[in-house]
Amino acid sequence: MFETVVLGRRCSDKKFREEAPALRMKLFEAQRRCIERKIPLLVTIAGMDGSGRGAVVNLLSEWMDNKFVHNHVFWMETDDERERPRDWRYWLRLPAAGTVGVFFGGWYGAAIRMFCTGDMSEMEFCTRMHHYRGLEESLAASGMAIAKIWLHLDKKEHAERLKKRLEHKQVRHFTPYDKKASENYDALASAASRAITLTDRACAPWTIVDAADANYRDLAVARAIIAAVDRALAEQDAKKARPKEAPITQESVISTLDAIDLSVKADPETYKKDLKDLQDELRELTYQAWKKGISSTIIFEGWDAAGKGGCIRRLMAGIDARISRAIPIGVPTDEELAHHYLWRFWRHIPRAGFVTVYDRSWYGRVLVERVEGLTAPEDWSRAYAEINLFEEQLVAGGNVLVKFWLHFSPEEQLRRFKEREETPWKQYKITPDDWRNRERWPDYVRAADEMFLRTSTGYAPWHIIAAEDKKAARLAVLRTCRDTLKKALKNAGEKHKEDHAKK
Amino acid sequence: MFETVVLGRRCSDKKFREEAPALRMKLFEAQRRCIERKIPLLVTIAGMDGSGRGAVVNLLSEWMDNKFVHNHVFWMETDDERERPRDWRYWLRLPAAGTVGVFFGGWYGAAIRMFCTGDMSEMEFCTRMHHYRGLEESLAASGMAIAKIWLHLDKKEHAERLKKRLEHKQVRHFTPYDKKASENYDALASAASRAITLTDRACAPWTIVDAADANYRDLAVARAIIAAVDRALAEQDAKKARPKEAPITQESVISTLDAIDLSVKADPETYKKDLKDLQDELRELTYQAWKKGISSTIIFEGWDAAGKGGCIRRLMAGIDARISRAIPIGVPTDEELAHHYLWRFWRHIPRAGFVTVYDRSWYGRVLVERVEGLTAPEDWSRAYAEINLFEEQLVAGGNVLVKFWLHFSPEEQLRRFKEREETPWKQYKITPDDWRNRERWPDYVRAADEMFLRTSTGYAPWHIIAAEDKKAARLAVLRTCRDTLKKALKNAGEKHKEDHAKK
Repeated sequence: MFETVVLGRRCSDKKFREEAPALRMKLFEAQRRCIERKIPLLVTIAGMDGSGRGAVVNLLSEWMDNKFVHNHVFWMETDDERERPRDWRYWLRLPAAGTVGVFFGGWYGAAIRMFCTGDMSEMEFCTRMHHYRGLEESLAASGMAIAKIWLHLDKKEHAERLKKRLEHKQVRHFTPYDKKASENYDALASAASRAITLTDRACAPWTIVDAADANYRDLAVARAIIAAVDRALAEQDAKKARPKEAPITQESVISTLDAIDLSVKADPETYKKDLKDLQDELRELTYQAWKKGISSTIIFEGWDAAGKGGCIRRLMAGIDARISRAIPIGVPTDEELAHHYLWRFWRHIPRAGFVTVYDRSWYGRVLVERVEGLTAPEDWSRAYAEINLFEEQLVAGGNVLVKFWLHFSPEEQLRRFKEREETPWKQYKITPDDWRNRERWPDYVRAADEMFLRTSTGYAPWHIIAAEDKKAARLAVLRTCRDTLKKALKNAGEKHKEDHAKK
Repeated sequence: MFETVVLGRRCSDKKFREEAPALRMKLFEAQRRCIERKIPLLVTIAGMDGSGRGAVVNLLSEWMDNKFVHNHVFWMETDDERERPRDWRYWLRLPAAGTVGVFFGGWYGAAIRMFCTGDMSEMEFCTRMHHYRGLEESLAASGMAIAKIWLHLDKKEHAERLKKRLEHKQVRHFTPYDKKASENYDALASAASRAITLTDRACAPWTIVDAADANYRDLAVARAIIAAVDRALAEQDAKKARPKEAPITQESVISTLDAIDLSVKADPETYKKDLKDLQDELRELTYQAWKKGISSTIIFEGWDAAGKGGCIRRLMAGIDARISRAIPIGVPTDEELAHHYLWRFWRHIPRAGFVTVYDRSWYGRVLVERVEGLTAPEDWSRAYAEINLFEEQLVAGGNVLVKFWLHFSPEEQLRRFKEREETPWKQYKITPDDWRNRERWPDYVRAADEMFLRTSTGYAPWHIIAAEDKKAARLAVLRTCRDTLKKALKNAGEKHKEDHAKK
């Protein structure tokens, strides 16, 4: 792959001085257009050691308006990062609309080096590359401009630069595999080539740049970024021009929700004791999970007034406050609005051993945003796969994921709405929105049905809870959490035994 | 102190049912007023083990609109936190305007327990308490409502509860000193009493609650929070009503800036080499600092067009991109606006060994905000002390702090403004704002003078750089950074030797 790139392309200082001003202006204008049209721009600068990655990062700060450029490095892993799903660190640093995120190495840097030094297996490497290809496709589809640059040096040039830097004591290693990788040109080039092949797609292509000559390199990088912006702009135009088609939905005459037995009632005689027993059990289980580093993400969806808040409070009372947090999902802040819709949920992903409870969740994308037409059909239809991928990462990262839908009848909802209007501290809970949503009950049923169908996975099934009786719902929620956690602890124990037996 | 509290106050269930609804409504209304009037509310729930801190936190979520309530715990220290100034974790979690931050233990919880078990010296403990008193005064002055609750139990009740919890295997310890503290009632009570005495102030008073009876406890907590909100509302009203006095400023006929020799010029023959040598030196020094965990915070202030961006780029080129970040301070986001003005700077404080460079800084408070009248005189006058306290913490937390003011003549500014207007990719840098600021040159001189006077401290002096010649300014900036870092490394070395000699 690299043979066709490293052809000794050069650009004289004179030619650079002629070409640079116009290109710099073009790059600057491309950035301006990103700001105007709210496009986030992700630039990954990867490459061989000594290829001038740092110089390129600095050049970009100079040629662009650096008020909107944010550079990020990822070579170091903090314990906060280690104890969360692998992508957490990347997600939190993704550029917001109108800003540029320059990722030094990005999600490729460490993986390529660890693979080349044998610190990562081939299967693990390929799995990661496929995963990042998918992530980039999803980001591009959400409107992000993506430029990925590999700065290359041929073997001779690489060796010469390394020798020179060693002589001048200019080689500084920040990670153990840095050194090994830099001393093994062939393995590094071959690993990079694999990564590039596996993740080169039209929406997020790689640009391989011969970095032997700094002038040529700088111009090539600027051109690649301009091209990435042009691609995103064209995609945005095309999206606007596309006719608004009616979404393809699963026709459902009989809803999943119809099958729920709403007559379940809690025994008022034993409710208090049952609740306390469950809370005590859960407190012990979550404490055991904390000791083992198993975290839990619990989300609540369901009809307005179905009793999410009440369930969450009883749940929280059954988990030590030192290891749990409830996150209400309301109106997004402007920082959240400027990012991919999953960004705000990544922010609160629990550390190993901790519990995060979301009151409403990422499913808003395929529920309220779909029903109210806040999001285009092509965007919310894509969300099912994005959400599954996100949840897969949570589970792979050691999270127990529990998803609740609280269900009751429209009649019971009406009763509770009226009750709310009559209780002083509950009046704020009832707004014209609630009455309007109520009218769209059948649309929400359809959206919920499709959501259950597409996102009830083996690793993260939906639990539909009969909530006609509030107390029964609370007990059911606590019971489900208890059982899920018990199973996870048992599996962890067995996995531990298996790992032990292998040794 | 506690004897007067623990008098066996009780509230019967009947009385609770009578009183609770009205109090709940009052608490809810207090929260609504915080939202309307953009008041952040900080509630610290501390207390004896088994006093029901968790139950109180849950009650608050139930009685308030929990969309705006965020609970935070601090018992665990991540390495991200350990490698930054101690207050970093608290600052990032301070409530935004209109929201409630419930701090479980807050900055008191761990300190009280560590002091009582002998894991913290008395001097350290008192210093911290004085520091937090100062911090709370500053937060209250910025408009925050502060409620601090200590849930108390007498010795007998505490012992009985502990016994019962041990019998039911309900005692769960998350930190090593948890256990020791819970087994030593007298020491814990005495440490708590010290903390309360040292930090009890009218603007952020403690409420000590007899927690033996849950009904009484819950009502008392709600009342304390309502009182804290009322205090903040009254303070806000008083502030509005206060006559706008002219600020007291230091009259300065001769400015500090007049003394700067602007004739300094870089030798164009050797500039390139001098710059490269300095960058090479700095790269090595910052690498050594990284190894020793010494971080650097470098800030740039100065006239528009004085060349901050150019200096920063040359500086960044002299530091490995893997350990450095440049943070441009532009228009704040709405999340930033909703917080204390120092919050957005705390966000980017470097980890041990890392370098953060701020393009403009927290000094905007006493420069542009003062001159343009964006901030009331009482607020920006308070900022000098707040900034000094902030910088003291940075330095105490292992940061090398370097502060630059780039100075040139009004004539040179005019020349550069015109040049910018004529260079295509620099046109965006010149706005009507720049021309307006220029007219206020003397006001800025006065503001800068007072800033130098009040914030040039031994641990964080100002460096005024002659920037009439851009190249000379760049070399001076790099030289200053080099010298400061060299000194810090030498001191660290000597400190290390001293520590060694002591053993």
